[in-house]
This record gives sequence, structure tokens and C-alpha cells, in this order.
Amino acid sequence: MFKVPEYEINERITKLKKLMRKKAIDAMFIVQRMDFFYFSGTAQNGYLYVPAEKEPLLFIRKYMPRAEKESSIKQIIEIKSVKEIPGLILKYHKKIDRVIGFELDVMPVNEFYFYRKLLSCEKCQDGSGLIHSLRMIKSSWEIEQMKHTAKISHRVFDYIKKVIRPGISEMEFSGIYETYARKLGHAARLRARNYQSELYNWHILSGSNGGIVGMLDSPATGQGTSPAHPCGGSNKLLNRNEPIMIDLGTNINGYHIDETRMFAMGSMPKRAENACRAVIDIHNTIIKKALPGTMLDTLYREAVNMAEEMGYKNEFLGPKGYKVTFIGHGLGLEIVEPPFIAEGKKDCIKSGMVFALEPKMVFEHQFSAGIESVFIVTDTGGCLLSSVPVDIFINH
Amino acid sequence: MFKVPEYEINERITKLKKLMRKKAIDAMFIVQRMDFFYFSGTAQNGYLYVPAEKEPLLFIRKYMPRAEKESSIKQIIEIKSVKEIPGLILKYHKKIDRVIGFELDVMPVNEFYFYRKLLSCEKCQDGSGLIHSLRMIKSSWEIEQMKHTAKISHRVFDYIKKVIRPGISEMEFSGIYETYARKLGHAARLRARNYQSELYNWHILSGSNGGIVGMLDSPATGQGTSPAHPCGGSNKLLNRNEPIMIDLGTNINGYHIDETRMFAMGSMPKRAENACRAVIDIHNTIIKKALPGTMLDTLYREAVNMAEEMGYKNEFLGPKGYKVTFIGHGLGLEIVEPPFIAEGKKDCIKSGMVFALEPKMVFEHQFSAGIESVFIVTDTGGCLLSSVPVDIFINH
Repeated sequence: MFKVPEYEINERITKLKKLMRKKAIDAMFIVQRMDFFYFSGTAQNGYLYVPAEKEPLLFIRKYMPRAEKESSIKQIIEIKSVKEIPGLILKYHKKIDRVIGFELDVMPVNEFYFYRKLLSCEKCQDGSGLIHSLRMIKSSWEIEQMKHTAKISHRVFDYIKKVIRPGISEMEFSGIYETYARKLGHAARLRARNYQSELYNWHILSGSNGGIVGMLDSPATGQGTSPAHPCGGSNKLLNRNEPIMIDLGTNINGYHIDETRMFAMGSMPKRAENACRAVIDIHNTIIKKALPGTMLDTLYREAVNMAEEMGYKNEFLGPKGYKVTFIGHGLGLEIVEPPFIAEGKKDCIKSGMVFALEPKMVFEHQFSAGIESVFIVTDTGGCLLSSVPVDIFINH
Repeated sequence: MFKVPEYEINERITKLKKLMRKKAIDAMFIVQRMDFFYFSGTAQNGYLYVPAEKEPLLFIRKYMPRAEKESSIKQIIEIKSVKEIPGLILKYHKKIDRVIGFELDVMPVNEFYFYRKLLSCEKCQDGSGLIHSLRMIKSSWEIEQMKHTAKISHRVFDYIKKVIRPGISEMEFSGIYETYARKLGHAARLRARNYQSELYNWHILSGSNGGIVGMLDSPATGQGTSPAHPCGGSNKLLNRNEPIMIDLGTNINGYHIDETRMFAMGSMPKRAENACRAVIDIHNTIIKKALPGTMLDTLYREAVNMAEEMGYKNEFLGPKGYKVTFIGHGLGLEIVEPPFIAEGKKDCIKSGMVFALEPKMVFEHQFSAGIESVFIVTDTGGCLLSSVPVDIFINH
């Protein structure tokens, strides 16, 4: 059975406690499913209480037998109701801590008010920054997980190349390759931190659908299936000789890989092919320059400058007035998580950060051209975790 | 093109304003995607400001051309940044209202703090209750949408019956029928209000997988694909002569249908078949009794009593210690939304409410038995929107 190793959990908790002391947070109350999984190894229904100076308490509402198998946290306590928690903290630790950190970036207001009252802490603080700063540096074990997911993603792209055919709708075709991914262990659900995120595995934008801008924080949005789901694939049929962008998310054991490749059946119009070659150039250059200590904004600007020099000022990152201001994002237990290679981000990249780099162009009303791979920052620059060939896939 | 009719939007806004006056809320600031869509007709990236005494302002960040086509709101204003909103409210309405309602049931704390400061309102209130009370009563137009989705769901169940076969994994099979649903227009993504909800379309629990309890607020949870996704289908292969539960969510034009049917290839063990017949009895009885004015709790108790009288005290709604305390939930633009037919819910059901009714049993470590249909409350009792036969599907 897959299990997050005990040493991983210990190290994560130790690092969290260290950061808490630095920020004068006495205890963290962790509930969001992936933060909870990250620090406990289980995604059962429960609450994790981590005091800076004592052992963490893992409260499980449902379902204890599975949580006990999955988690390396030593103190696991079954509860019937969240209301038992204050009493149990008192029982195990003699006191409820004064300053408690919550995940205020994702926790809804009413839920926060409920916990604040329940724990009657003196001061509540936003602890989400601490969690992000840990989660954004991947351990060797996590890198192995992501490499494994990347291998499955590679197999799905190979499968797509084999079975893509004209005359099938974008949405139906997305189901076909997702079925194959599920057969290989893909968890099918992509996780996002933001409650407003539209996350899905049918971002297949063929021909003119790739030229449709919309609500997504992405260069192209696609038509989608209705005004209620106005993004991604549609009932448009795939045609020969048009550029087809497939942006694929794969999730194995909780760890995501996010990759985009361009496909065509027959040939791709020269203008589209040139644009695809240009984004591949940008992609390869940025990965090489992703050295520890480089500012996120510097990498972003480098990509924008390259695109402009190659004559793609109008198309790069979307049409004028609707351009996005990032070229890459972190990923791991969520498919989009900090940090972001984006305009104005003054933080420096660090060894162990993992990014999905996605330079993309939109030729409005015509097509999209882009690529996306996952790389890890090492001391000698970015190193691909993705194993899919960095190329255009044309079936002649 | 699908469009929410102007009269629908007008009526929803009028009713919202009426409720706001009753609750002394001067304006509502609506951002959550489905609330936003419900009141505006568009799901583009934006903000809807509804003052009780003035015309609503629809602010669109991205993408104006689509929002203008989709929405019947008269005043649509394109913005580059949310920070322009206070100035624009002043420009159009001369003042920013004093008491502003927010969707505090879903809005994260940090986001709320940001808006509160931005709008510098005197008092912020939870406006989510108002929105729910409107959304839970469906209009005739909405019922037509849901009937349309129900027809597609029926076709997917027919397809499942035709193509189900032994030796295929739960996850792969879920992909096959979801592909068919996508071909018919299914938006593939199921929407949920709660940020912690695990919502997905692969709740296919075959044989012993149906006997696995876990983190879901559902009688059975299933094995899932890993401790990070510990619910729903797994790599277990479908077998002949075992009960197979398929819980299917379908979404067309934003409106969901949620239905469960039991399948078997060959035959179903007598004990399972009897349990399936028992839940069908409960299902049919509850629908008949769903008369306006009946308390939600009364329907819940009625179902529990029936199950106990038939000898299923241990299995109904889950095994002892892990039972859920509801038998049905509202649905519409979200697949799970208020109201809930649940223990202790003292509200009365009303004409126009739509429920997914799902009496289910878990024989721990063995199998699940259950059914789920969608009905609307009418003056003469519940009336099925679902058209799938209320039966067990056995391929001999």
C-alpha cells in the first residue's frame, strides 16, 4: 500500500514548528484536505492540531481504521464531533494555546468564526503562508512521486498520439484519453486551492477554439460546454490540418503533473508551427536560466522579451488587453499552488521548487500555440521531471 | 445558444431585493461562481453588486464580449481590476451602501477581509442564507433544465447497462460511461459549494468496495485510488454476480442530476437483492409523502423507521457508529446544496424544492445497496424528474 513515509511526516512537522516559533504562532489548526494530508499522511475526515512545543494531535471524525493505517502521527484520537476538540486538547496538553494559526487563504468566513469560538484562542493568525513556504520546496521523496506521475502522463500523451482522429468532438476525445489515464491509476480529480478555480481535464482546444479568450486566468479559455461552464473543450469536432492544444493534468497518489503539447493530424499551418517552435525556444531557455537565486519576475520578463524579439508581442500570453501575467506555477498536491513565475514577483527561486512552465500564445479567433512541462530547480538550473518529448506531435 | 432568459434574471433579482429589505441589507456583493451565474446569467470572471433600492451593477474583469452576450443585466461595466469597483459604484449610484451582504459560507477569510476594506462598508453581513432560500425553490424554467439533464442521465444509465462487462476496473469503466456522457453534452465537472467536498463521477462501488466506509458524508465511501483520494472507484475489477452501485452526476448547462442505480452481471446475491428492494420501497414511500408543509426531519425519521421495521437497522445509512444522518439533499446549479432531508432539520418542505433522495445501506466489508432519484415537491407530493426506471439492472 502507498504510504507517506514516517520520516517525511516527521520532517514536515519539525519544519512547521520551527517556522511557527519564528512567527510566534503557538499552534496550527489544519483542516484543508491537502494541507492535512501533507502533514498527517491521511486525507480522512479530521483536524490536525500542531502546537509549536508539543506533539501534534490528529483528530479523526471519520474513519479511524483507515487514518490509523495511513498516518504516522503518533497521537490519533477518534472523535464524534468537532466540539470535543477543546476538551481533548486540554486533556492531552493541559492548555489551549494562545495564538493559533489557521488556513485563512482557503477557510470560509463562517467556518473560521466557528473554530475561533470553539477554540476560544486569544489571537488568530493567518498560517497559510507558513504552509505554502514548506509545501513549495519538494523533498526527494516528493520528487520521486512526481516523476512517477510524469511517467504516467507520458504514457497518456503517447496514447493520445495513437488514437487521435478527426471527426470526434473535443469533449468526447477528452473522455477517451482520461479513461486511459484512469486505467493507469490517475485519480481523475485535479485539486486546486482556490474555491473559484475551474479545474478539469478537458482543456483540449482545437483550431479556432484555441483562439477563444474568456474567464480563465490562462491565455486561451476555449468555448466550454455552456455559459455555465464557459471554458475548455466543447462539442467542436477535431479536424485535420488544424493545431490542437491538449493541456493534461495527471494525479497519482495525490501528486500532480501538468503538461501541454500541440497535436495535428495531417499538417499544421506554417504560422502555427512557427509559433509552436517559438514557445519551445522560450520554454528551453527559461528552464536553463532557472537557477537558484533568480527572481521570479526576471524569468517572466525574460520570456516576454524573447517572445517580443521573435515578433510575437501581440500573441504571447494572450491578445492585447487580455494577457495573463505569468508563465509558470508551482504544483504538487495541488495542480496550481505557489510560487508563480509572474510579473512583479520579487521572490527568488530556490533549489527544490517545482514549476509547470507554460509559455503560450493566442492568435485570437484562430488558434493557440503553447507548451507546458514540469521542471525542478537544481543548483545547475531547471531539470525536467516531464519525460514527454519537447516537440510538436504531428500524425502525417 | 443557451441563455438564461431575461425574465428569470429579473425575477431572481427582484426576489433578492425583497429579501434584502426584509433583512436590512443595503447591497449584496456576489462573487461565488454559481451564485454569480444564478443572478447574472454569466459565469465570466467578475463581481455582481445588487443594491436593494437601485439597479444591479455587473462588473466584468474577463471577458466582456462573452458576458454581454450571456447576461441580461442592464448595467455591465468592464474593469481591469477589482480596485476600480468602489469608484464605479460611486459614479453610478452616488454612494456605497452601508450594510453589505457577502457569501460568508464560501468566501475565504483573506478574500473577505480584502473586499471589506475595499468597499469600506459600515457593516458586513452574511448574505448566503438569502441566496440559498431563493436558489432552493426552482422556477418552471429551471425544472425544464433539470428534466433535460435527467433525460441525458437516463441515456447514460441505458448505455451503462449495455456496455458493462466483467474484468474491467471500476475507474476505467467510470471513464467509459463518462466519455459517453461528455459526448451528449455533460459538462463533466460537478460543482459543489463546500471547499472540502470530494465530488467526482466515479462513485462506482462494486461488491466489497461498496462495503468500505471512509471519510465521505455518505453511507459508503469506497476504496478510492490512494490515501490522497480515498473515496469512490478503485482499480478493483468488476465481477459477475456481485452488486454494483453506480452513483452518477450529470451536468448540462449548469444544472445537475444525481442518480444511483444498482447493477449486476449474471445475478445478485439474494441478500443484496432484498436490500435493494427495501431501499426502493423506502424511496417510493418518501416521495409520496413529500407534501408541502412536511418537516424535513419527519421524512428522515419515516425512512429510518421503515428501514428498521424491515430489519435493516444495522445497515441503513451506514454501519453502527458511522451512519450518516440524511437521506436526501437539494441540487441544481450545485450537485449538493440546501435543503437537506436530515435529522433535526425542522424546516418544512415547500412546493418547487428539488431533492436527490438517496436511501442507501452498507453491509460492511461486503456490499452497498441503494437507489437515488431526483424529485420535485408538488402540491400532491413528490414527482420524479428522473426518468430512469426505479429498478435493479441485472444483465443475465
